[in-house]
Amino acid sequence: MTYRIFADLAASDSALQLLREGTRHHQLLFPSNPATSCLHQADPDPLMSTAEIIVGQPNPAAIADVAHLKWIQISTSSITRYDTPEFRALIQQRAIPVCNSASVYGSACAEHTLAFMLAQSRLLPRSLSTRVAGGTPSWDHLRDNSIPLHGQTVLIVGYGTIGRRLTELLAPFSMQVLAYRRRARGDEPLRIVTLSELPEALNTADHVVNILPDSAETRRFFSAERFARMKNSSVFYNIGRGTTVDQEALAEALSSKRLKAAWLDVTDPEPLPEGHALLTLANCFITPHVAGGHHNESLTFVRHFLANLARFERGEPLSDRVM
Amino acid sequence: MTYRIFADLAASDSALQLLREGTRHHQLLFPSNPATSCLHQADPDPLMSTAEIIVGQPNPAAIADVAHLKWIQISTSSITRYDTPEFRALIQQRAIPVCNSASVYGSACAEHTLAFMLAQSRLLPRSLSTRVAGGTPSWDHLRDNSIPLHGQTVLIVGYGTIGRRLTELLAPFSMQVLAYRRRARGDEPLRIVTLSELPEALNTADHVVNILPDSAETRRFFSAERFARMKNSSVFYNIGRGTTVDQEALAEALSSKRLKAAWLDVTDPEPLPEGHALLTLANCFITPHVAGGHHNESLTFVRHFLANLARFERGEPLSDRVM
Repeated sequence: MTYRIFADLAASDSALQLLREGTRHHQLLFPSNPATSCLHQADPDPLMSTAEIIVGQPNPAAIADVAHLKWIQISTSSITRYDTPEFRALIQQRAIPVCNSASVYGSACAEHTLAFMLAQSRLLPRSLSTRVAGGTPSWDHLRDNSIPLHGQTVLIVGYGTIGRRLTELLAPFSMQVLAYRRRARGDEPLRIVTLSELPEALNTADHVVNILPDSAETRRFFSAERFARMKNSSVFYNIGRGTTVDQEALAEALSSKRLKAAWLDVTDPEPLPEGHALLTLANCFITPHVAGGHHNESLTFVRHFLANLARFERGEPLSDRVM
Repeated sequence: MTYRIFADLAASDSALQLLREGTRHHQLLFPSNPATSCLHQADPDPLMSTAEIIVGQPNPAAIADVAHLKWIQISTSSITRYDTPEFRALIQQRAIPVCNSASVYGSACAEHTLAFMLAQSRLLPRSLSTRVAGGTPSWDHLRDNSIPLHGQTVLIVGYGTIGRRLTELLAPFSMQVLAYRRRARGDEPLRIVTLSELPEALNTADHVVNILPDSAETRRFFSAERFARMKNSSVFYNIGRGTTVDQEALAEALSSKRLKAAWLDVTDPEPLPEGHALLTLANCFITPHVAGGHHNESLTFVRHFLANLARFERGEPLSDRVM
């Protein structure tokens, strides 16, 4: 069976070469104006309406016109653009599977989160800029304020592919790991707390890791009230989406030291405007939405797509299917 | 049995309180001029010569005068001060066990090393100071230059308590971990390379972690020749002692990009003098000998000593015995 595959990707040469090789029994279609990043929403392209498989970030409004569509492979973890009642209804009615790329970015996101946690624990930003002799007060201060992860409590809010991988990475630290997710599946390898147990869990955790996606339900989930539940020795991490945090409340909690520190890979907007309160706080550390990034990630994505294509051809369940 | 215990320690109030409680059946002796840090060599004190157990960093030259000495508990991991033929001969002749505190600092050192490795992998120093929008060239550059640890090769040079713990922490990353140690014991949970296999191992490793102690054998172990063996994509870490590295050769390798980066917790001297070549390189990251440091470490040390004291009283083998 030969499929018409419309691929709108920001891909490296090696990734494109692999894509061409891996789809040589199919017909590969490229837009005239391809995407510039994996977050980029595709421009409309007339070729797309002729496709049976779409790869990339298609405009959800244009999907209804793709008469013979059989499968959509989204190039990000986030499906915010597609998480609407209208889109879900269309997809369900036409029985079109939709896959995201959580497994492409999940491992790097989990490593980025652990990098944040260890940089906080070892006070790396301060330590890397301090040149002192042993036995001095500032040396004592650095050593004494390094709190080992070993034995501490982590609460993961929004437990999916990244949270699962983070849990694996944290296993040797003998930490207590709890998680909250909207719909527990029962196969999670750790204790899942319910929404009513969340305030108590927030109060227990030394580290609160937010991996919530953006949706109507999650917007400003981390509110002043939820930050107020957290211990003043606790650290907040955001690796999900900036919109899930009340940033004014976070800035207030950090400046008043009701929270110890925050490490954010995502903000709202990105980047934050110059002079934003979160940019001026010494206990707020921000990276520019790079957690999922890794060397030649478009190659990882193409491998993910081709593995799914093989499953699709054999009629097997697809990996990272989200709808 | 009641012992006279001479304790020369820089200890917190809670650590001192625990020490007093835990030794209440013994006689605790303190010097008139106590140590100011765990690295501090004790000043001579006449009380020490009356001790049966010495805790701290006793002057090795003064040990011969301690007539009834039965055990020395050193307060650091390093035993450089005691690693001389004269001291070893004295200790052996009088059958006095000597213990270090590797298990007190090993876990924090291993966490510090992994913090370095992940900060390098995720490009944290650059990423934390970059405010850019998605899709820009500097954003692409950050993402594309993040090399995940997953699947890479680590060579640990100087394999003891820290290396063992680091190996545990690295287990979920599915890295290939090799180690070199002077005298392999056969119980190591990974492949130990011999000195003749070391050049090949240096050439294979993406990450070379130096945890060598200071001794006549290890001084300038990391020479220009050994750095020349390493790949230009490889990263060097030093968590052992500064004297084990030819720092001029390291600076040259870093400035010529023959090595990708170095992360050092130790240097020679400490701190490096202002203007030292290693301080001026953008790919050299230095923390001020804080890897083993952690919140209330003197309390961890007192717990270690008291656990060993209980073993000593019961005639059991002592933990972290090094002579």
